[in-house]
Amino acid sequence: MRLKNIKGAKEKINESPYIIKHPEEYKGKFKTIFENSNPIHLEIGTGKGDFIINMAKKHPDINFIGIEKFDSVILRATQKLENINISNLKLIRFDATEIESIFDKEIDKVYLNFSDPWPKNRHEDRRLTSKRFLERYDKIFKSKPHIIQKTDNRHLFEFSLISFVNYGYQIINISLNLHEDDYDNVETEYEQKFVSLGMPIYMVEVEK
Amino acid sequence: MRLKNIKGAKEKINESPYIIKHPEEYKGKFKTIFENSNPIHLEIGTGKGDFIINMAKKHPDINFIGIEKFDSVILRATQKLENINISNLKLIRFDATEIESIFDKEIDKVYLNFSDPWPKNRHEDRRLTSKRFLERYDKIFKSKPHIIQKTDNRHLFEFSLISFVNYGYQIINISLNLHEDDYDNVETEYEQKFVSLGMPIYMVEVEK
Repeated sequence: MRLKNIKGAKEKINESPYIIKHPEEYKGKFKTIFENSNPIHLEIGTGKGDFIINMAKKHPDINFIGIEKFDSVILRATQKLENINISNLKLIRFDATEIESIFDKEIDKVYLNFSDPWPKNRHEDRRLTSKRFLERYDKIFKSKPHIIQKTDNRHLFEFSLISFVNYGYQIINISLNLHEDDYDNVETEYEQKFVSLGMPIYMVEVEK
Repeated sequence: MRLKNIKGAKEKINESPYIIKHPEEYKGKFKTIFENSNPIHLEIGTGKGDFIINMAKKHPDINFIGIEKFDSVILRATQKLENINISNLKLIRFDATEIESIFDKEIDKVYLNFSDPWPKNRHEDRRLTSKRFLERYDKIFKSKPHIIQKTDNRHLFEFSLISFVNYGYQIINISLNLHEDDYDNVETEYEQKFVSLGMPIYMVEVEK
């Protein structure tokens, strides 16, 4: 994710009706925000929002939450949402390392799209599919943990497969070249660029 | 595997000192053939033998057995071995569907290289990584089941990953582009051709 410091980003995103400013206050009761009991799907590292916005439009009976660490990035998502009314979508500016402080047994599915690969071994714990993160996710899932990962980074994908399986996840769906397959795929803002460069997109869906 | 019926192939292979003609007679006691207690590694679908011959040369402290269904194919392996003396290598002309009738708790590692992908769903059971085959392998492993698969066929590889994991295997090593990695790889007769065509070679190593 390229980062520019955008002046006043924090203030600007807080003006968006899509942003949940104090997410810890809703811990365990996010369904009250959506005013219904539909499943809640969470994208961790939501970037500029293309995936989560299009998923929310496509699946009105599912509630979507995107969390993103950087003000300057999530700002782009809020800008895309100006003058659009989508009732089943919320965004949170938050660091995923503390995700269990804002959700409690209420997430049905987690999406990890093109997460930072953290290629150095000493940064392994920072990868969103490391054992440390899988432990965190255990606390936020409502019942059966269910994660869908997409990435263009094969080393992250190889690491993730081993990590998921070692942690007890079963593989229920996998593609080593998603765009060659007949799969109901919603793209992120970078995905098409990777594909046009001839890079395969890897996808795995796991459950435990 | 391209097949030509070669006249007299059956008779010719039986002249090779590398061929075990009546493997069922050695069930449970293959180590007597090698006259030592070194580990026994088995390649199922050994083709024209490049992999198993080079593995045997490279690892003199491991005994290697290659099994191959087709006379006309294994004949090529025996021809490559003419006038060469490798004491830790044997070949068997046999169909893997009955593998548990020739081995009993004596195999340490199984290699599956570029196995037939059997792409049609109704042929799933014929894939060498199907549940049916994994059940057969359980009976031939000495202790911890350990399988290494290489293939250029992504659908077979995707299927295999799901099948291994559903059957209780852990992934201990994986590569989605083996020839880009620093891996101690011994090639099969077709492998270099796939690589020169720009196809990634997939590899996974699993244990249970």
